[in-house]
This record gives sequence, structure tokens and C-alpha cells, in this order.
Amino acid sequence: MIPLRLLLFSKLPNGAVRSIYSNFGIQNPNLTTTIITHVPPPSSASMGTKVSAMVIDGKSVAEDIQDKLTVEISRMKNKFGVVPGLAVILVGDRKDSASYVHNKKEACESVGINSYEVCLPQDCREEELLMHISSFNDDPSVHGILVQLPLPSHMNERNILNAVCIEKDVDGLHPLNIGRLAMSGREPLFLPCTPKGCIELLHRYNVDIKGKNAVVIGRSNIVGMPAALLLQREDASVSVVHSRTKNPEEITKQADIIISAAGKPNMVRGSWIKPGAVLIDVGINPVEDSTDPRGYRMVGDICYEEACKIASAITPVPGGVGPMTIAMLLLNTVTSAKRIHNCN
Amino acid sequence: MIPLRLLLFSKLPNGAVRSIYSNFGIQNPNLTTTIITHVPPPSSASMGTKVSAMVIDGKSVAEDIQDKLTVEISRMKNKFGVVPGLAVILVGDRKDSASYVHNKKEACESVGINSYEVCLPQDCREEELLMHISSFNDDPSVHGILVQLPLPSHMNERNILNAVCIEKDVDGLHPLNIGRLAMSGREPLFLPCTPKGCIELLHRYNVDIKGKNAVVIGRSNIVGMPAALLLQREDASVSVVHSRTKNPEEITKQADIIISAAGKPNMVRGSWIKPGAVLIDVGINPVEDSTDPRGYRMVGDICYEEACKIASAITPVPGGVGPMTIAMLLLNTVTSAKRIHNCN
Repeated sequence: MIPLRLLLFSKLPNGAVRSIYSNFGIQNPNLTTTIITHVPPPSSASMGTKVSAMVIDGKSVAEDIQDKLTVEISRMKNKFGVVPGLAVILVGDRKDSASYVHNKKEACESVGINSYEVCLPQDCREEELLMHISSFNDDPSVHGILVQLPLPSHMNERNILNAVCIEKDVDGLHPLNIGRLAMSGREPLFLPCTPKGCIELLHRYNVDIKGKNAVVIGRSNIVGMPAALLLQREDASVSVVHSRTKNPEEITKQADIIISAAGKPNMVRGSWIKPGAVLIDVGINPVEDSTDPRGYRMVGDICYEEACKIASAITPVPGGVGPMTIAMLLLNTVTSAKRIHNCN
Repeated sequence: MIPLRLLLFSKLPNGAVRSIYSNFGIQNPNLTTTIITHVPPPSSASMGTKVSAMVIDGKSVAEDIQDKLTVEISRMKNKFGVVPGLAVILVGDRKDSASYVHNKKEACESVGINSYEVCLPQDCREEELLMHISSFNDDPSVHGILVQLPLPSHMNERNILNAVCIEKDVDGLHPLNIGRLAMSGREPLFLPCTPKGCIELLHRYNVDIKGKNAVVIGRSNIVGMPAALLLQREDASVSVVHSRTKNPEEITKQADIIISAAGKPNMVRGSWIKPGAVLIDVGINPVEDSTDPRGYRMVGDICYEEACKIASAITPVPGGVGPMTIAMLLLNTVTSAKRIHNCN
């Protein structure tokens, strides 16, 4: 079912990780605060050999989705006079957050979504932020509201995220939405962007999910937990492993599908993987690389060099799940606009 | 850690299952509608031999909880003048539902909770039911509202359950509550009664959950799904198997803890179980038994005869999880009254 390709890979760099900022699309508040002191090296025996895993090209799928959204948004504008709008609120001056917001704004513009941006100072009061959310809640030209995380420590993230009305919660992270995702017979208004992007990749590459053993590595509210719920909705038998799991490799070795969202570079080694498994790598971890002009490069949670010899398909990092997250955010915003204005 | 006991068990009956009504406390709308045509027999080699699994005595734990609730409710009454109240709404004339409601009412009375009962005819209009829910929502003497399931087919179960205000949703099945249960850093107002009872049994018997492999069999909104979320909150590595799982026994064989809520008599055989595992059997399935004066008896999802020789601890059926469900309902009602009246 999955066509095979032959690829050659060069040596991955090892070494300690600097605290750097990614300009990649995944919203991971832990990314810049974790200093990883050791990155396990891929075994030297595995280097430079031919591999057989198909590369799941998230960049190209995301582009295809964005192309279709461009056409759809144009149709909505012409037929109904509706232009989807996404509001992004940024608090403080974190460079990574500013970069994420910039990327989202650019992506919106590229497909024809109106983007609204509010930038508040680091020391702004919670009430002020809540006022902006309330104003976007009431604004009929805004169909999605996204508060860029992490927030400054003096703010109550839970209260602030709860203030976004569920009809405009394009991140899909409102507890009511997550509850509906967990329950059979209930329909969430939005699926969280990154897990939705993972499943979309599986669908696009015709990966059977029903009845398969799927393992999710990580249980974050943003990725791991909703990814597990989504896989279960697709009738996979789902296991979740996390930082407290004593024998993760014994569990992952049984998996037909792995979604890894651990945030640990090269954690998933070849020995963790069942031959023929499909691997979706949500991790995007900076590691030092003196051969890169920036001095660092991004690697996933999965040791690509080893995995691509064992898996049947694998997402690269970057260019796998990352671009899908933004594409799903745009798609959720368009879905929201259609629902609010009842245009189909 | 778990003390061992020696027990002798008699032969389990085999045979087809009649559609009969349980007077047991688990709220399982599927119970009376499933006609099971074949119950797998325990192997004859396993009969009448000595066994080593400790019996997890849910009946006695539930009695202990109810004793403590009795004292607590008396204290609340004397100190704050608050008496917890539970409203139960029954629609139609299903004998099993009537029996469940009767049991809940009796349990309330036994601990000093005021119970309020509304019985509506099978053909009552949805609006009428919603009116009663609304009235209980507004009634300050009612702290928990329970709509007995299943509802007649002309009613929209989702709309009706959503009408119960979340502060009185002692069943814990509101999607907002389930969402909070799924999310780390969020606190549900109530934990769903049956899964909460399962975890309480593990705690009472000092079963380590953190870092253990736990398998939940079944993914219902009422038991399986929230049980998996609860185990994950307790830092277990959780796998969920269900009707679409191709190799359930391969997954259950890795489990240190199994919670089974499949509704299939004797489905989990000895060969499915890892030696020393702890087994919580939520299933309560009627099977024909000519030696029983009623003509039937209740068995769990787990083939007790085989399992009790392999597991380190196991809940019996009946007398395991069943009594815990009612005890947790009473506990949730008391918790609700304390929260609403701010009495601690």
C-alpha cells in the first residue's frame, strides 16, 4: 500500500543543546525552557546505509491543504461575502512566541484569512488580556482566537484559555471540546491542530488505523493526550507512554503506529520500533550542529537514521508534522467561519 | 505487599444467557439488551483447585465508606444544618432501571442523604423531563441530579444530560467534566462513579499504580474511557483495548493492572493474564444457572476460576466493583453539598 523509496542519510550531529528559538510552527511552550544536556548518538554502524522507509512529506501535504483553502476562501468571499478571520494575542517579548505568531500571520495572508494581532507588554494585567479576548469573542469578523502560549507567570493560563468562547476556540483545547473528543457519540467543535495534523498525514498516506496498535509517547494537553483520544476515535488500540513509564521500548515495540510528542531528541531508537511501523514524529528539538550556518539544527524525538531502516513510513523533522499544525489551524478557522455564517 | 489468602471455588455454570434484570448497582444501559448466546467455559483442569489471588472485597470497602459518610453527614447536619440531597429521575417502566433507582434511594436513606425521586411515563415529552431537571438545578436542597439511563428512544440523551448543571452532575459524565479529567492541571468537579470506585479499590488494597502497565478493556463513556483517563492521572502507562482490537490477549498479558468493562461473560481467560496482575472486573453479566433459585447468576468479564490462580488480587462478581459504584455516588453527593454550602 505504501510505495517505497530509497534514500541516503548523512550523519546526525551529537552534542549538548543550546537554548535556542525555533521558527517552526509547533506551539510547544516547553521547547525553549528545556536545556537538554545529552543527545544519544545514533550507532555508527547504522550510518550511510540504504534505507527503505517512505518519507511522509508533511510540507507537501500542508501546501496542498493550503492551496485548497485558498480556493475555498475565495469561493466563500464571492458567494457569501464572508472572509475568515483569525485573532492572535501575544503577551510579552519572547522571540520564539513572536516568531510563531509571525508565521501564523503569514500563513493566514497566504490563503486569504484576515489576521488580527494584539501584542501586549510582558507586565500587562490579566484583566486587560481578558478584555481583548472578550472583544474578539463579540467581533463577528473574528472566527478563531488564539492566545499564544506560554503566558507570563503572573497570569492564570486556565482562566484565560477558558475565556475564549468555544465557538472560536480553533486550538480545540477548551475542556468542553476535549471532553467531547473523549466521548463517543459527541462531536468536538474543533480538533486540536497538531494531533489533527498527525491523523491527516496517516489518512493521506492511506495508513490503516482501525484495529491497529498505536502508541502515543507523551501525554501533554496540547499533543499527546488529544492524539491518543483521536486515535481511539479511529478505532486504534491505543497505549500512552510517558515520563513515568518504566519500559517504554517494550510498549512501542508492539506498535503499528507511533506518534511521538516527548520533546526529547533521538529518544526513540531503532530497537524501540517494530519492523514496518509507521512513525509520526511531533518532536522538534534543537541540537548543536557546527556544520549548520545557524550552529544548530532540528531533530525529532525519533532517531531518524535508525528508524528509517526499520519503519515503513516516517515523518521527517523538520518538514513533517510542523507544517501540518499551521495548516490545521487555518482549516479550523475556515471551518469556524463556515459554521458561524452557515455557508457551505 | 498484598497479603495472600487461600480459597476454594466451585464450578462455574455454562450455557446461554437469558434476558434478565439485575438488581445490582452498576448503571449499564447495555446490560438488559444484550443477549449472549455463548459463554466460554472455564477449562475443566482448573476446577476445584486451590488458588492464591487475594479477593478485593468491594462490598466491605463500600460499607466502610458508607459508615464514614453516615458520620460525616450527621456532622454536616449538626454543624451547618446541611443535609445532602440526591434527585433521581426515572423515565418509563424498565424493571432494571426501577431496581437501580430503588437501590440508590435505599443507599441514600441508609447514610442520611435526602433522596428525591421523579418517575415519568415512557411516553413523556422531552420538555417535561427538561423542566424537572431545571427545577432540580434551581433547588438548593438538591446537590446531585441523576437521570437514570437508558432513556426512551424518542429522547435525545445528549441534550438531557447536558441540561444537568455541572455543579450537580454527580455522575461526572458532563463533557466539560470529562475534558477536565483528561487534561493535566485541570480538576473535574466529580469523578465518574464506577471508575472512581475501581481506583478507590486499588488504593484501599495498596496497589501501586504509578509507572505500572494498566490495561482497560472497553471504552464506554461511563466506565472504560474515564477509567483509562483516571489511571493515566495516577501515572500508569495505559492501554485501551476494545471490540476492534485484534489481539487483546497480547496486550492484557503485559498488564500489571486490568480494569475490564467489556460486558462479556468470562471473556478474559487465564491465558490473557500476567502472573501477579491485579484484576478489577466491572462486568456484571447474567448467565443461566439451574442451581441458583433465580435460574441465573452473575459473572464478570474475567473468568474468575482461571484468573484467581494467576492474579495476585481480583474483585469478585458480585461484591466487587458494584457496591463501590453506589458508594461513590453517595460520596459525590456529599462532596457536592459541601462545595455548594462551603462546609468543611
